Amino acid sequence: MEGPKDLKEVVLEIAKKAKSASKTLTSLSSGVKNEVLKRVAQKIRENREELKKVNEKDVNQALLQGHTKAFIDRLTLSDKVIEAMAKGLEEVAQLPDPVGEVVKMWKRPNGLMVGRMRIPLGVIAIIYESRPNVTIDAAGLCFKSGNAVILRGGKEALNSNLALADLFRQTLKEFNLPEDAVQVIPTPDRTAMEYMLELEEYIDLVIPRGGEGLIRFVTEKARMPVIKHYKGVCHVYVDEEANLEMAKTIAINAKCQRPGVCNAMETLLVHEKIAPKFLPDLAEEYKKYGVELRGCPETLKLIPWAKPATEEDWYAEYLDLILAVKVVKDIDEAIEHISKYGSNHTEAIVTENYSKAMKFIKEVDASLVLVNASTRFNDGGELGLGAEIGISTTKIHAYGPMGLEELTTTKFIAFGNGQIRT
Amino acid sequence: MEGPKDLKEVVLEIAKKAKSASKTLTSLSSGVKNEVLKRVAQKIRENREELKKVNEKDVNQALLQGHTKAFIDRLTLSDKVIEAMAKGLEEVAQLPDPVGEVVKMWKRPNGLMVGRMRIPLGVIAIIYESRPNVTIDAAGLCFKSGNAVILRGGKEALNSNLALADLFRQTLKEFNLPEDAVQVIPTPDRTAMEYMLELEEYIDLVIPRGGEGLIRFVTEKARMPVIKHYKGVCHVYVDEEANLEMAKTIAINAKCQRPGVCNAMETLLVHEKIAPKFLPDLAEEYKKYGVELRGCPETLKLIPWAKPATEEDWYAEYLDLILAVKVVKDIDEAIEHISKYGSNHTEAIVTENYSKAMKFIKEVDASLVLVNASTRFNDGGELGLGAEIGISTTKIHAYGPMGLEELTTTKFIAFGNGQIRT
Repeated sequence: MEGPKDLKEVVLEIAKKAKSASKTLTSLSSGVKNEVLKRVAQKIRENREELKKVNEKDVNQALLQGHTKAFIDRLTLSDKVIEAMAKGLEEVAQLPDPVGEVVKMWKRPNGLMVGRMRIPLGVIAIIYESRPNVTIDAAGLCFKSGNAVILRGGKEALNSNLALADLFRQTLKEFNLPEDAVQVIPTPDRTAMEYMLELEEYIDLVIPRGGEGLIRFVTEKARMPVIKHYKGVCHVYVDEEANLEMAKTIAINAKCQRPGVCNAMETLLVHEKIAPKFLPDLAEEYKKYGVELRGCPETLKLIPWAKPATEEDWYAEYLDLILAVKVVKDIDEAIEHISKYGSNHTEAIVTENYSKAMKFIKEVDASLVLVNASTRFNDGGELGLGAEIGISTTKIHAYGPMGLEELTTTKFIAFGNGQIRT
Repeated sequence: MEGPKDLKEVVLEIAKKAKSASKTLTSLSSGVKNEVLKRVAQKIRENREELKKVNEKDVNQALLQGHTKAFIDRLTLSDKVIEAMAKGLEEVAQLPDPVGEVVKMWKRPNGLMVGRMRIPLGVIAIIYESRPNVTIDAAGLCFKSGNAVILRGGKEALNSNLALADLFRQTLKEFNLPEDAVQVIPTPDRTAMEYMLELEEYIDLVIPRGGEGLIRFVTEKARMPVIKHYKGVCHVYVDEEANLEMAKTIAINAKCQRPGVCNAMETLLVHEKIAPKFLPDLAEEYKKYGVELRGCPETLKLIPWAKPATEEDWYAEYLDLILAVKVVKDIDEAIEHISKYGSNHTEAIVTENYSKAMKFIKEVDASLVLVNASTRFNDGGELGLGAEIGISTTKIHAYGPMGLEELTTTKFIAFGNGQIRT
């Protein structure tokens, strides 16, 4: 027997079992789904010490391999992370179930009643890196939306992921439901992921979460649709007619409230007319937060301590207390800059001018476009979708934060009384 | 200079120009778009003779290569096909413009007004085979929905496709719009298509239309989402509580009205209780249409002249006057059969029983599920979407016929008055 061939069969078996489980999930009542989610939450709390013990193995191994402190932090299942997972599931249980909703219904001239009904996608594969809590968060959202899930986490978290998924599977069994609705690829071998990405017959969607390298790899190999975002190069444009106090508050919040996330601002664009008044004042504020500024020549004249920005800075996703600053001559230049350097993630304008607000909303192509609010709102919870499984900048049905509804599609349904086509 | 490298650059250039053109299209008014479409229609009529002359070159070449009559038929731009293209554009001009529609809007506790606004996908690549009229039909739908389009038709239709696209491009120029909103890959070289499928940075969606081989090739190579359907293995299930007259009419229509299309019925499932009464009568009717029947053992007992069905018959998309017939013991066996052998395309039940109708609607996974109506209704026009660019069985935002709305997505928009995240 050849090793690789076996692995291929193992992965195929997982995908087939997921597809089969997904058929039961499609017509599961919301009540049962919510009970399952609450029971998994309970089980996670009950098994806290065991989970920590298993996780310790992963952490010790990672320490031996010399991983960074940030990496170890993400890998660790602390009491806080464990409680957050349990609570997350309870929150998902509270959210409305999108499956079965009839989105629209209309009548055709021949009397046929035609509608669109929300249905699960089927089988979703989630590929992620070192955070084991994604195992539970993703499984909960997929399950509530009626989808089977195949989880492929970072190899360093494999023991933790298996233990977490096992609690979900035990619960499914208790409820007499197919445990294969939640499966973890049981090997760190990257080839397994490659095999999985070929199985478009069984897997309907892949969501990779992690570094750009991983996402590019998945996009290249996958035969099924991939929903992803590479990076968030988000801008705030402060217009000449902005309320400058508001602009300052938003600019500080967008950069400093949590600089390491994808919806933090990376470049600030300022109208040339208000730059001399606005920028020096704002720069003082940024100094207090320890933000390094990298400016265009105009900016440098106004903020002598800023560093000169290079072409690369306009493309940069710093994820850090660094900000690129550019003075623009008008809203058109701002929109052009965003179109060239932005990443279709989150873009904001600060202005009191109605026409410019509406122009920005219409013309800027990003998964969230805001007027007079911080870029930090691009988040399923903040926008009112409930929990999210990620933010998509793929221009497909889910563009922006993906909540439960974004894990479904619609089928057409038609009620007739004998209609035929002539 | 190496040939292949040049070709790669040509394709990259096309994709870049399409992306750039798509930016103008995003905020084009519906009025201007409609005027353009009507003008292209006019131009097509004015240039009828020239189009036929160019097409003749393609046709003569294809004849020399010994293509089948059916192939030549599809390739030929007859007066009828030319008029249909022009009329199609005028119809698309009449359809509502989906771009800019705010699908939903809600208020967050902090006062932020959040909504979803319909936007074009961006750049759509259409890969098709020998019908040159697809060039105009697809370009019209993409343009109306604000998308730039890259067309890659069959190599035998290249001259015709270029001539048709040129009329669209001339019109765009007249209106001072970017002509690169409509482009044809100017070479029959398959490598060009392969290069194109790698350009996920510039192309947002690929729609392959044609044989299973082409579609599988595109799915394998493409890095961007692919919307497709391989085949339509559509079923009609006649329940024990069906109105048998209605069932007969629907079964005849679904198989015989146009057997060569994807929404024609390929397998008939009949409840065992009514089979002895229903099937012999129906078989007589099918005989008149010259339909060959291939049945399960139960069917063979009732219709002696039917041929025995093999396992392959249950998977078959005949696209011909051939029908597989199976007697089932109940609705569950019917749904299981559909789940195993169906292609998620179109499925119908005939029944007077309310609970069974609703069970079928809920549990069957297909892009259109019907009660008491013919499978032939799975068509954008018939369902009320206006023109369609194809039918998708990809479980992504467009599942079923794809009209204008299915060529768009939504972005989030948010109107604030200074909201920041705390």
